[in-house]
Amino acid sequence: MNINLLNQPDSEIGIIGLGLMGSSIITSLLISGYHVKAIAPIPNEAESGKSRVKELLAICAQSRLIEDEETYLSKLTVSENYADLSNCLLALECVIEQIEIKKIVYDQIAQYIHPEAIIASNTSAIPISVLQKLVPNPARFMGIHWAEPAYSTRFLEITCGDKTDVTKAEVVYQAAHEWGKEPTLLRKDIRGFITNRLMYAVYREGLDLIESGEAKKEDTDKAFKYDVGSWITYMGIFKRMGYEGLKNKAVIIQNLLPNLSQITHVPKIMEEIVNQKGRGIYNQIGLYKYTADDCKVWEKEFADFIDDISRLAAKFPVNKRLE
Amino acid sequence: MNINLLNQPDSEIGIIGLGLMGSSIITSLLISGYHVKAIAPIPNEAESGKSRVKELLAICAQSRLIEDEETYLSKLTVSENYADLSNCLLALECVIEQIEIKKIVYDQIAQYIHPEAIIASNTSAIPISVLQKLVPNPARFMGIHWAEPAYSTRFLEITCGDKTDVTKAEVVYQAAHEWGKEPTLLRKDIRGFITNRLMYAVYREGLDLIESGEAKKEDTDKAFKYDVGSWITYMGIFKRMGYEGLKNKAVIIQNLLPNLSQITHVPKIMEEIVNQKGRGIYNQIGLYKYTADDCKVWEKEFADFIDDISRLAAKFPVNKRLE
Repeated sequence: MNINLLNQPDSEIGIIGLGLMGSSIITSLLISGYHVKAIAPIPNEAESGKSRVKELLAICAQSRLIEDEETYLSKLTVSENYADLSNCLLALECVIEQIEIKKIVYDQIAQYIHPEAIIASNTSAIPISVLQKLVPNPARFMGIHWAEPAYSTRFLEITCGDKTDVTKAEVVYQAAHEWGKEPTLLRKDIRGFITNRLMYAVYREGLDLIESGEAKKEDTDKAFKYDVGSWITYMGIFKRMGYEGLKNKAVIIQNLLPNLSQITHVPKIMEEIVNQKGRGIYNQIGLYKYTADDCKVWEKEFADFIDDISRLAAKFPVNKRLE
Repeated sequence: MNINLLNQPDSEIGIIGLGLMGSSIITSLLISGYHVKAIAPIPNEAESGKSRVKELLAICAQSRLIEDEETYLSKLTVSENYADLSNCLLALECVIEQIEIKKIVYDQIAQYIHPEAIIASNTSAIPISVLQKLVPNPARFMGIHWAEPAYSTRFLEITCGDKTDVTKAEVVYQAAHEWGKEPTLLRKDIRGFITNRLMYAVYREGLDLIESGEAKKEDTDKAFKYDVGSWITYMGIFKRMGYEGLKNKAVIIQNLLPNLSQITHVPKIMEEIVNQKGRGIYNQIGLYKYTADDCKVWEKEFADFIDDISRLAAKFPVNKRLE
């Protein structure tokens, strides 16, 4: 088995788990031309997952990402049989974030997959070095973390654990460009990878600001949305520093950093919502109040937005001269 | 004088300083229909500033933000004479971030402006409570912080100092909607206001990550760009929490916050560039290497992007039901 063929759209990739993320990733790979072997570890997930992929392909056709849904759908097989993975170059696990469950899934995968194939996890919560211990060949295990909706966002984070063979991660990195991604490769397993670290730095500061009463949540949301939203899709944070001038930024850093939040605990304002089993739009308990109908509007609007922003971002490809 | 008329596009606003920000703010107010009295505190700035506003109006016409440049230009007067401010409801200072210079400007403004008018600063670096001490009527002084380019971005941060009369800030907040903004109102003067606090939390984490060698700057830029860039123009950070579910986020906060950067100093990697007098694209010394020609391409591309993202954001106005 030659895993270098992973950048050939005709090769086979296995996806284990057909939840929201799993179906979205399957759709992404299908529209990139790949053959997908989907494994449903949960009873009835095969049926519901397949319907969901059909729906997503229809959305892709509507947004003119693809022309003919049937051609793509014909490259998908869904079953509960892990033996289907035998020709896959890569098996990507997308199940719930519980180590015990993932262990059961890896044992099944390992039983049928080619010893040279890659096993990966879409986890964003568990360190890769921990999961790596659960597979027979840790050198061929890594994190491949997607963003929702996987078929239209370009984010993809590839993370090595302590024992990952970096050259294997590089093969996935190359192939990811074929999946329409702008991947990043983290050679060292750091907690939270890159994006969660940056984003939780924002969450920490934001939660601390509203908990202390220094700012209202509505204003905090607006400020970040209209400031960062006006440039981030065009340039990253260090590129932005260059655009605005580093000298001034260093002066502000000097004055501002000692004032920034250093909390390491869950802010009370959030703890209270968690105690109420707040799941945001899923049960309408969150920092904002909204009805189930509001949430439907929101999901529809956001789907339209994702479609628009992906199209816009594609007009401004990474300018190699400038990074 | 009735400052409540500030929300009437036919009223007069004074702008002091015709640098990059000043001319951009003037353009924003002109295309919203306001009469602008621009004061040039630096010799020759009147001429260069006026040409710059003309150029910006031409850009607005190209992007179909306005139809006829001349009508708008006719509502602008540029001089070195502070007496022109006598009928202005608001005088906004946009000069260099040096307290001594601002003091000279405020003395001039106060000499001619109506005692009931508002004086404000576009500062992002100096606390409002400090600047407030330099004017005769601190209750009518506040921060009004714009983002570049002021005529197309919707960000606007209004900040009260210790002595600001909040009802006056609320008048500006209301009027700002007429300027095409989605303003925020900070009732308390906190260091860095809102957006800089959130953004420098990201800069701290990002700089620490690349300084420690845990991630490459290119990857850090990419990860934030493609993750946050795919939703921030649609929703703020707390709304995002609701969308993704708060329960999971609390678990990640618990695990991740103790690992986040707590540095309060300027990272070495940045200090070195500052020592080289690095001003990013202005002198091509920054975290990335680029030529002067690269920077021209960049500025052009980014102008196009800003145009596109503003149009896209306008398709998704703040949904009052959801925030």
